[in-house]
Amino acid sequence: MEKILYGNAVVGQSGGPTAAINATLAGVIIGAKEAKKKGIINNLFGMRNGVEGLLDERLVNLSEEFEDDADIDTLIHTPAAALGSCRKKLPKAGENDAIYERLLEIFKKNDIRYFFYIGGNDSMDTVAKLGAYMEKNSYEMRIIGVPKTIDNDLDVTDHTPGYGSAAKYIATTVAEIVRDCAVYTVPAVTVVEIMGRDAGWLTAASSLAKFAGGAPDYIYLPEQSFDMNSFFADVRAALDRHPNVVIAISEGIRFADGTYVGASATKDVFGHNQLSGAGKILENALKQEIGCKVRSVELNISQRCASHIASKTDLDESVEVGKTAVEKAIDGISGHMMTILRKDSEEYQSFVSSSPVAEIANKVKSVFDNFINADGNYVTDECISYLRPLIMGEAYPSYENGVPKQYIIK
Amino acid sequence: MEKILYGNAVVGQSGGPTAAINATLAGVIIGAKEAKKKGIINNLFGMRNGVEGLLDERLVNLSEEFEDDADIDTLIHTPAAALGSCRKKLPKAGENDAIYERLLEIFKKNDIRYFFYIGGNDSMDTVAKLGAYMEKNSYEMRIIGVPKTIDNDLDVTDHTPGYGSAAKYIATTVAEIVRDCAVYTVPAVTVVEIMGRDAGWLTAASSLAKFAGGAPDYIYLPEQSFDMNSFFADVRAALDRHPNVVIAISEGIRFADGTYVGASATKDVFGHNQLSGAGKILENALKQEIGCKVRSVELNISQRCASHIASKTDLDESVEVGKTAVEKAIDGISGHMMTILRKDSEEYQSFVSSSPVAEIANKVKSVFDNFINADGNYVTDECISYLRPLIMGEAYPSYENGVPKQYIIK
Repeated sequence: MEKILYGNAVVGQSGGPTAAINATLAGVIIGAKEAKKKGIINNLFGMRNGVEGLLDERLVNLSEEFEDDADIDTLIHTPAAALGSCRKKLPKAGENDAIYERLLEIFKKNDIRYFFYIGGNDSMDTVAKLGAYMEKNSYEMRIIGVPKTIDNDLDVTDHTPGYGSAAKYIATTVAEIVRDCAVYTVPAVTVVEIMGRDAGWLTAASSLAKFAGGAPDYIYLPEQSFDMNSFFADVRAALDRHPNVVIAISEGIRFADGTYVGASATKDVFGHNQLSGAGKILENALKQEIGCKVRSVELNISQRCASHIASKTDLDESVEVGKTAVEKAIDGISGHMMTILRKDSEEYQSFVSSSPVAEIANKVKSVFDNFINADGNYVTDECISYLRPLIMGEAYPSYENGVPKQYIIK
Repeated sequence: MEKILYGNAVVGQSGGPTAAINATLAGVIIGAKEAKKKGIINNLFGMRNGVEGLLDERLVNLSEEFEDDADIDTLIHTPAAALGSCRKKLPKAGENDAIYERLLEIFKKNDIRYFFYIGGNDSMDTVAKLGAYMEKNSYEMRIIGVPKTIDNDLDVTDHTPGYGSAAKYIATTVAEIVRDCAVYTVPAVTVVEIMGRDAGWLTAASSLAKFAGGAPDYIYLPEQSFDMNSFFADVRAALDRHPNVVIAISEGIRFADGTYVGASATKDVFGHNQLSGAGKILENALKQEIGCKVRSVELNISQRCASHIASKTDLDESVEVGKTAVEKAIDGISGHMMTILRKDSEEYQSFVSSSPVAEIANKVKSVFDNFINADGNYVTDECISYLRPLIMGEAYPSYENGVPKQYIIK
């Protein structure tokens, strides 16, 4: 047991929004509230727009802002980063020490001894660099990275906070699209383009639509190289089985030579190159090759902000991860990223742990080989068993005037 | 009071799917069940794929299929047409009487005395033509059109079943997108393209996002001609106010000369013309003109099939409309379209009525002039007051394995 550090804490959010990043923030707020009762953490400050705002000392006192537990509950169900976000990466050690000196000055001035950073890979990098600098300069501080990413591509952790809600949105929406496509008798293909530049976890979640009554006919992930002729053969085989074919693809599918399917350029009326999505490219390719009715649908940003259909499992775990981060930091842990690990039990159970950031940062976890079928055009039952628990349970927001209530930090 | 007709009934669904078209079907099933108890309607048949399937006598006995009320409840929350749909229009009287003769033969053979057709404008046209033929040929029958369209563009009725759920999806999704856009400090414009080729009702619903904490900065409807220079000026003014600008546009916005903004063609790598959506066109125009970060988002087919966030008001009314259609038909009404009328009360209240199809069919109800502001770039408070009650209440489906349960007719 390390010695207890007394002082203030600061929390920030970084990178792209998710439906669960505020649930994790709420967890940190809850953890800090409990630590305040014990007299350990005095105030929890929020940095606006991550380290970018921290450098300008744009801080908000979250201990005061969230005195009311009802507000914390509303925050849990509010999508996107309530504190604002940034894409700033800290410089390499020795490259621009002025930034680190400035941060140290702000920490000292505000008596900040705890630093929680909720984000993806870049944020874990920030945690590692900041930890190294403070240690070198003997400023006692606990620095913890709290993961969030809809992409589910971080290592060590079984899955990432934010992924389950995105997966639930995708599974539900694809199930609804499959139903929508089933109404006509005319042969038609619908290509659904799902987020995921390098990892296919989000697209794999479309397979869960099968529990609603209709999954896509084929699922193509970036982990497998994409072959146009095999694709045409697959679609023809599906059209032989039924008239309404639905295909799920990752935006990041690539040909064998490594080029993105979606990188094929189109030109606008002025002759400017315009990047089309992979879905649009395949739509046009199918129209030319097969000649049937084809449309493509891009699920777009709702995948990361559709809080109205968040996974209860995801939001509960996201809160727990934030809360445990505070507890671990008080216990002396620093330079770690929080993880969610799966128990080896019949029914799904998880617990929160942590690992040194250095073991995790800057690695990408791809969809496992045994999660993809031999033909590279669907996921396996093993994959579905892994995915299913993550979307379980509904975490509905409160509604006012017919729309979800959102918490906006003043 | 007309004389009571004893016999069987048939119901069909036609046109594009909605999140409420099965709620109306459920209403007809409930109405027929009650009529069966009274010994009036014996069996309710469902025509698969509308009149297209009826002509092939592809019928399913819904009285047997839906003996269990729990199945009716699941049906209410299932998107898209459970019976399948079609886009078939009946020929003009005298043009191809063989089709009408065939229908009469099927009605006689199956003792069908009640015909309910759930659909949009084309379906009301079918109702009118069929009614005229059966009357001319002295076949006693009651024929009722039951409206459904997310577009809300039918006349006489205050609003259409299916619209409220689409509007709730749009308001909620736009609120989430506004939150998502608010996280960064870099100036950026997001253009959200919403369905509605000729009427702006769906796009107008984006204004309801204001109740969640953030509405679009501007809303452009097809009812007003679109001017690119005014648009640039609007966006510049919004960027002066805050960095994160959100614009809602109808897919059907048009320039003063009547051409669709979205009709501007782009060319793919093979030199083929490709129609871009209005959102994509404005995205590129803003990039060139203002040079800031711009993206466009197409809400796409979820607008018509997102049952997971259906409006309770809409689903309740949709069931009621179907149920009342059966009651009215038994009472002797024929050749009518069901309508929903709004009571002149402080709190929103509605009731179901009907009007002769001929008064309604083939007319388009545009967004009223007093619902659009003088600058033509937003809706008025009067519009918001009209819209708000239609998205009230949540009608959640049951979930199994993390995804909504759907009823699929075998």
